[in-house]
Amino acid sequence: MINGAVLIGGHERQGGGKFFAVDPATGKQAPTAFSEAGADEVAAACELAAAAFPSFSALEPGARAAFLEAIADNIAAIGDELIVTAMSESGLPRGRLEGERGRTTGQLRLFAGVVRQGEWLDATIDPAMPERTPPRSDLRRMNLALGPVAVFGASNFPLAFSTAGGDTASALAAGCPVVVKGHPAHPGTGELVARAVRAAVASCGLHEGVFSYLPGTANALGAALVADPRIKAAAFTGSRTGGLALVGIAAARPEPIPVYAEMSSINPAFLLPAALAARAESLGKAFVQSLTLGAGQFCTNPGLVVAVAGPDLDRFATAAAQAIADSPPAVMLTPGIHASFEQGVEALAAHPAVAKVAGGLVGEGVNQACGALFQTEAAAFLADPALSHEVFGSSSIVVRCRDLAEMTRMAEALEGQLTATLQMDPEDAGAASDLLPILQRKAGRVLANGWPTGVEVTHAMVHGGPYPATSDTRTTSVGSLAIMRFLRPVCYQDIPDAMLPPALQAANPWRLARRVDGQMEPAR
Amino acid sequence: MINGAVLIGGHERQGGGKFFAVDPATGKQAPTAFSEAGADEVAAACELAAAAFPSFSALEPGARAAFLEAIADNIAAIGDELIVTAMSESGLPRGRLEGERGRTTGQLRLFAGVVRQGEWLDATIDPAMPERTPPRSDLRRMNLALGPVAVFGASNFPLAFSTAGGDTASALAAGCPVVVKGHPAHPGTGELVARAVRAAVASCGLHEGVFSYLPGTANALGAALVADPRIKAAAFTGSRTGGLALVGIAAARPEPIPVYAEMSSINPAFLLPAALAARAESLGKAFVQSLTLGAGQFCTNPGLVVAVAGPDLDRFATAAAQAIADSPPAVMLTPGIHASFEQGVEALAAHPAVAKVAGGLVGEGVNQACGALFQTEAAAFLADPALSHEVFGSSSIVVRCRDLAEMTRMAEALEGQLTATLQMDPEDAGAASDLLPILQRKAGRVLANGWPTGVEVTHAMVHGGPYPATSDTRTTSVGSLAIMRFLRPVCYQDIPDAMLPPALQAANPWRLARRVDGQMEPAR
Repeated sequence: MINGAVLIGGHERQGGGKFFAVDPATGKQAPTAFSEAGADEVAAACELAAAAFPSFSALEPGARAAFLEAIADNIAAIGDELIVTAMSESGLPRGRLEGERGRTTGQLRLFAGVVRQGEWLDATIDPAMPERTPPRSDLRRMNLALGPVAVFGASNFPLAFSTAGGDTASALAAGCPVVVKGHPAHPGTGELVARAVRAAVASCGLHEGVFSYLPGTANALGAALVADPRIKAAAFTGSRTGGLALVGIAAARPEPIPVYAEMSSINPAFLLPAALAARAESLGKAFVQSLTLGAGQFCTNPGLVVAVAGPDLDRFATAAAQAIADSPPAVMLTPGIHASFEQGVEALAAHPAVAKVAGGLVGEGVNQACGALFQTEAAAFLADPALSHEVFGSSSIVVRCRDLAEMTRMAEALEGQLTATLQMDPEDAGAASDLLPILQRKAGRVLANGWPTGVEVTHAMVHGGPYPATSDTRTTSVGSLAIMRFLRPVCYQDIPDAMLPPALQAANPWRLARRVDGQMEPAR
Repeated sequence: MINGAVLIGGHERQGGGKFFAVDPATGKQAPTAFSEAGADEVAAACELAAAAFPSFSALEPGARAAFLEAIADNIAAIGDELIVTAMSESGLPRGRLEGERGRTTGQLRLFAGVVRQGEWLDATIDPAMPERTPPRSDLRRMNLALGPVAVFGASNFPLAFSTAGGDTASALAAGCPVVVKGHPAHPGTGELVARAVRAAVASCGLHEGVFSYLPGTANALGAALVADPRIKAAAFTGSRTGGLALVGIAAARPEPIPVYAEMSSINPAFLLPAALAARAESLGKAFVQSLTLGAGQFCTNPGLVVAVAGPDLDRFATAAAQAIADSPPAVMLTPGIHASFEQGVEALAAHPAVAKVAGGLVGEGVNQACGALFQTEAAAFLADPALSHEVFGSSSIVVRCRDLAEMTRMAEALEGQLTATLQMDPEDAGAASDLLPILQRKAGRVLANGWPTGVEVTHAMVHGGPYPATSDTRTTSVGSLAIMRFLRPVCYQDIPDAMLPPALQAANPWRLARRVDGQMEPAR
């Protein structure tokens, strides 16, 4: 079923150049040759996406929801081939990938529900006031899809943040055709999922241009996609360098477009004194569990721990060091990611103001990461911005503060983050309440007495945050709110009822809750 | 009461440099010397704004609403001095400015109502599921203010889009302190309004940093303001050049920020055949009324008319030409705007493919614009992008198409617009339905059988649109939705109830409608 093709709408073609997947656990190439999509394929996919846009964006919510559910069904129906392929391309274990598959299909079904409910349309009606001086026109507003969207598959979630992951699901939910730039680390996985999406397009009778899939290794491929004038937004999860390159390309277009890039975050955890005193050892163990989960390859990996120096923090560090020392090595996603991790860890180890606390067990295989824990003083951390750069993988720094005031200065000095964590007991409420207003300015999600890995896909989730965590702090890439990234409001003034989109017609054929003269009227 | 000071929080200082207002109707300088705010004043205002942010953004909705109402009251209480000052600085007539004052205070009161209602908080709760495997945390999301906002006063609405206009009102409503860069064309008007805002800050017992006012003529002033790291968003209404300069500065910051720039639009009107046949003359007259309103100095001025060539269009053009020829000259806002208008009209008159249809009455005074109407063929218009650039003022081009298909090509070729208009009779429904899907992609507001000037301040309004109409098509700068520009979502996970913002606390002390597990629960 996997043949390495570029999938453009309902058609496929083999590209000129070829590349191969590498199993990171062995370092060996897989036999299938995957096409390098090029400028012609970008143009063809974008042309089809633009042609699909009018009909797809105007689709009745029930039909678009059924399409999302058909994608979920088709992904589930691939069966074990998907898991086995993803395992061999990512080095991730079966259990994790089976869970991620459930998250991926669950996310598509969540958006199906969101689409059916119709709140995303934000249907708003200010009826005409012909008697007023001057008379008021009939004004009706709703959200429309932005247009074709470029989605970049992410390496660290080959299912849930890739070909049919959260970005694709939310863009399709909004009514935007999607052109995926497949991640070259898992091309077979990507192709299997892309074929599942394509089959849903066909079985739902949609325009073939609703979805295309462009595999490839070249930065030029992604650049050409974001530069294509038919693309109206882009979504990306990956490095700060990669994200900023796309932001730059999008801003330099004759018509600039939004880029939703989820980039880098070190997800600070603040251990407050009473909590630290009460449970230093269990905090140390739980921290390392979060740090080493999935070889530390989560956007929300806790890369920074902040606490007041003293015997309690020493107990935490000792427990964490022991847990790290006992943690088995783990295969990373790609040789490149592994090399970057090694480089980051070596740089920290060589830093004059940083001490290594512990390292994980060393393995025999290739591309294996050992957990790494460092510590430094707050003054040293604050003096060197390099120390606050993300090291992608299971590496973290414990920052020792002189007092709570220095913990506050640490919070104030943070760059934007996806998450910030408070470990607190009831006696810490004062200190926590001082930190919370700072942390909510710095992060998209603030949590207490947990660890940041594990991002619930739901209505209240925010997986976002101020720059450089993302390129647009006004949004989230996980959870139902993500649909809003791909919409824009349009007002219809005195447009004859029969010409209005159904969401705004007098008869309310979609039975939406609508805002009339500023007051919500429930769905009928 | 007007002394030309820079108003920084509750304090004022005289700047080093000075500038003077010019009465465009006479070309004469007014006696008051106004301060040129500089880098020191920018820094002082931003410092105060950042200090005011925590308390102001956390304010209970009723208190913030009362503040907006106090501003409205104070502006109304200035009395005739405000109108007389604005007349002398803008050349706009009394009736227009009295209306604009009502719009300005009405807009502040609208946002007071919006703030009280609390929908903008988007309070969303996904309760914990401790029994689930794995257990779900308690997740609560709401919108928080972005931070201090830079607002640029616009020349063409010295009240409604300036010091306490829509941008300031919506930013304050969202909980963002505001630093206004006053427009140098109406410094006395700006200062009067700024003092009214400042008095409301004081009488409501708010932190003085909630509002500052920086008059000045230098581009460097605005640049320094947008570059200040404490500023988290900017709002601007003006030229494409000015808007794009600010967008560039904002993108080049170490922490990029959103800029909401409302820039340029030619607001095409499509005259469909049956409507044109039935009422060519009345359409021609009504069009010129909209075109010459306020010397054509509206963002929504109809600068482009598109129709199929033939006797009906000739009748329209004849009627419009007659109305233009009868239209009195009007003083423009500034000598610079008048010079640009003259230049734009001369360039069109000199264009080989463009014919002048009519010009308005020529006046005796300085800075007076005469209406100007041109026509060309669609093929010529489509061949020269320069013809689709905005000429700010009462100048418009009638584009003659061979057939409806060419009208459709005109629509497809449009840049982003604030508005697009259809003049249609019931027999035009087919042609109108073909154009509507194109026009709703091109414009923020599509209207039928009216003219685009006159922007209702209400819930369903969209005063926005794709680039280059604005820098961010996902928003509006007029109407209650404008508040959303200055907000970002934040998620609280397992945060103790007493530490949560009131909007998310279990007891719901602000009595908000909230979304619980994806379903809206009405306000209590």
